[in-house]
Amino acid sequence: MTNSENMLQQLRSEASTIFTSAIKAVNPNQAIKRYVHVKDDYLYIGTDDEIKFKLSDYDRIILIGAGKATAPMAKAIEDLLGNRIDNGMINVKYGFTEELKHTKITEADHPVPDQNGVEGTKKILELLQTATEKDLVFSLISGGGSALLPYPASGITLRQKQELTKELIACGASIDEINAVRKHISAVKGGQMARAAYPATTINLMLSDVVADKIDVIASGPFTPDSSSFHDVWNIINKYGLNEIPESIRTYLDAGVKGEKPETPKENDPVFQNVFNFIIGSNIIALEAAEKKARELGYQTLILSSMIEGETRDVARVHSAIAKEILMTGRPVLPPACIISGGETTVTIRGKGLGGRNQEFGLASALDLIGLPPRVVILSGGTDGNDGPTDAAGAIVDPLSVERGEIAGLNAVSFLQDNDAYHFLDKSQDLLITGPTNTNVMDVRLILIR
Amino acid sequence: MTNSENMLQQLRSEASTIFTSAIKAVNPNQAIKRYVHVKDDYLYIGTDDEIKFKLSDYDRIILIGAGKATAPMAKAIEDLLGNRIDNGMINVKYGFTEELKHTKITEADHPVPDQNGVEGTKKILELLQTATEKDLVFSLISGGGSALLPYPASGITLRQKQELTKELIACGASIDEINAVRKHISAVKGGQMARAAYPATTINLMLSDVVADKIDVIASGPFTPDSSSFHDVWNIINKYGLNEIPESIRTYLDAGVKGEKPETPKENDPVFQNVFNFIIGSNIIALEAAEKKARELGYQTLILSSMIEGETRDVARVHSAIAKEILMTGRPVLPPACIISGGETTVTIRGKGLGGRNQEFGLASALDLIGLPPRVVILSGGTDGNDGPTDAAGAIVDPLSVERGEIAGLNAVSFLQDNDAYHFLDKSQDLLITGPTNTNVMDVRLILIR
Repeated sequence: MTNSENMLQQLRSEASTIFTSAIKAVNPNQAIKRYVHVKDDYLYIGTDDEIKFKLSDYDRIILIGAGKATAPMAKAIEDLLGNRIDNGMINVKYGFTEELKHTKITEADHPVPDQNGVEGTKKILELLQTATEKDLVFSLISGGGSALLPYPASGITLRQKQELTKELIACGASIDEINAVRKHISAVKGGQMARAAYPATTINLMLSDVVADKIDVIASGPFTPDSSSFHDVWNIINKYGLNEIPESIRTYLDAGVKGEKPETPKENDPVFQNVFNFIIGSNIIALEAAEKKARELGYQTLILSSMIEGETRDVARVHSAIAKEILMTGRPVLPPACIISGGETTVTIRGKGLGGRNQEFGLASALDLIGLPPRVVILSGGTDGNDGPTDAAGAIVDPLSVERGEIAGLNAVSFLQDNDAYHFLDKSQDLLITGPTNTNVMDVRLILIR
Repeated sequence: MTNSENMLQQLRSEASTIFTSAIKAVNPNQAIKRYVHVKDDYLYIGTDDEIKFKLSDYDRIILIGAGKATAPMAKAIEDLLGNRIDNGMINVKYGFTEELKHTKITEADHPVPDQNGVEGTKKILELLQTATEKDLVFSLISGGGSALLPYPASGITLRQKQELTKELIACGASIDEINAVRKHISAVKGGQMARAAYPATTINLMLSDVVADKIDVIASGPFTPDSSSFHDVWNIINKYGLNEIPESIRTYLDAGVKGEKPETPKENDPVFQNVFNFIIGSNIIALEAAEKKARELGYQTLILSSMIEGETRDVARVHSAIAKEILMTGRPVLPPACIISGGETTVTIRGKGLGGRNQEFGLASALDLIGLPPRVVILSGGTDGNDGPTDAAGAIVDPLSVERGEIAGLNAVSFLQDNDAYHFLDKSQDLLITGPTNTNVMDVRLILIR
């Protein structure tokens, strides 16, 4: 191997190591064990044991939840509380299961909800409705929790709810507007699960997969006050001229405005007085772990932001502009430098290829790295290990990636235009493959320069 | 005024001050005087007087150049060398003139070249062709220099050249490919002016308006070796299937491949042996000046990159993600924080409104800042003081900008969709107006957080 190849090999291997450290820090099992401690009859919640509960004060411990990482979260709670758990009921994505002793798992579809999800949610609601003030409820929420807790308000079908959501997306409604509508045609979202659990004490532990960790957005906030109203929902529907909404939804929303249907619970509603919300894993926690590992490896580090959004290829250009500046002038940090960013970008589909946002980020970056010295590497990976409908988590690219693809007969520009990053990166040997990680706190990106 | 308004007022005023400092640092007159020093019979070039010339060794001092900031550059050289200048000839954009004693100014059109530009370039070439090894040539190049030095190769018209360029852009050719073609159907670009000036000593002083300050790209590199060939040009034309190129261009390129037309001079060509290239003003110099001023005002600073490119609204999202992270976790720097970036973004025109990339950046940022505490301000400005076809240099926005626009009856999302930032920012009182600055080193963006 040449010196350049050695250098790139080292950088690529270090990038992988740093990425792995980031994922480990948000492993659901570990995250639960960092936030939940049991000593004798006492339960402590928080990294510094901020809140204390006396277990013998409660008649029952109930465990509910939904999300792609909820099974390993439940496993961790079972490890900690064992036989003290009286009843458990969680919804997870098909295949995302664990061996659980006290908790019944319902497998359901994601991202498009299915009838299994509805059945599971019904059971969870029924269980919560049996809860009294002498019960302690653990709610375990993770990415995908919204689709895995489908329960349309009375008279509305899952299909109708999905259609309306689609229409809202198509007409350019903001995510806040879409959420306001969704919460008002659901029987669980927007704090309505807290209403079902009331007056039990509820400890809601969340693995956040949303930008800025907004708890009213994570799984559509089943235990969080909703600030929108039926009135707002009508304004949104009128604003976008959605005249053809299904009759069942129209009837329900009309009844809602007249006060004949329950409004989502607002801040200061007593249903929240016994709810304790904790984010136990999030993107910034993963980025901090990446930073720690990078420092151990001798890098000067900079966390740009855990909240990066925007069109993937343009976000990639900003990252490679920073890489170029480091190489040219040593700004914003001198090499050996590790720039870290998180969040979740979007891809406007223009082609028919295979890939995901992290692979697209990789391919776009590879094009920007052409001609740079062989001492820079860019990694972009989904912390769930699953980028788009592929077996890859993302990509690690370097200044020779495009050339490697070309030698294999592929043109990087064409593959990017076709959103076909997977097939390019496969040939250029730049796919990042981790297998499923059982967690999800969005994406981690790394720029490494020696 | 409320405390919030006071805080925002202070931040906005400091952002303006910092932006003004950045522009001052790249003022063409000052930049020339920082790089060119005359003591008695000696001419020193470089901030540390790196190169020395004995003026009495030369028979004549000739001054040529082109660009929007070239007139004030010439003024600075005239201030320094006065009557020692024997002959001068520069091309500038209509109206971008100065009172010069020894230099003839040709005003011409930009960004679309016109016949005046061709006439002026012809005169410059003729002047250079008279130069001998006993002559000293100052070349003064600034932004717009490419369009202001139009001179198609023999037999090709300006119109034909422009048509081919347009076709190349339309079919997705890369900027390097477009430049290769342009240099080969021009009589001045790609080092051909160096050939005209040879064997004179040429000091080429450039105010860079291109990302990464590539000297073969600034004004299409009239004094810089070209790495592309007639053969490459045919490959590019064939690659994109441009079968209908004008007969005159086809004939010229055919002759070129056969060696019947002069190839652009390559590296190691003797025509470059007496050429000294200096970048006297660039984006990073402006950013460094901004950093200095921000530190004086008490900010912790970070220069992200001087090379930021990409779709404006997505680049803006990355910037506001950094602002949010600073507010939430104090990363990448603790407040009071000033994040600085440069380069030049692009805008995909989707609407019919009025604006420029800096105003679009401002409006997109304003939408991202909604709901943030009133202690963050984002500025984006063109260093030429002229953003798009407007009288504004850019925008300064804060978390209340969108609300101010709404109070005036405007919807920020609709105005952004229509690329109509100017009319929104005008009403929200967020336009940044400096007037023409006589310089151009692309854009400066600032995030200020207290």
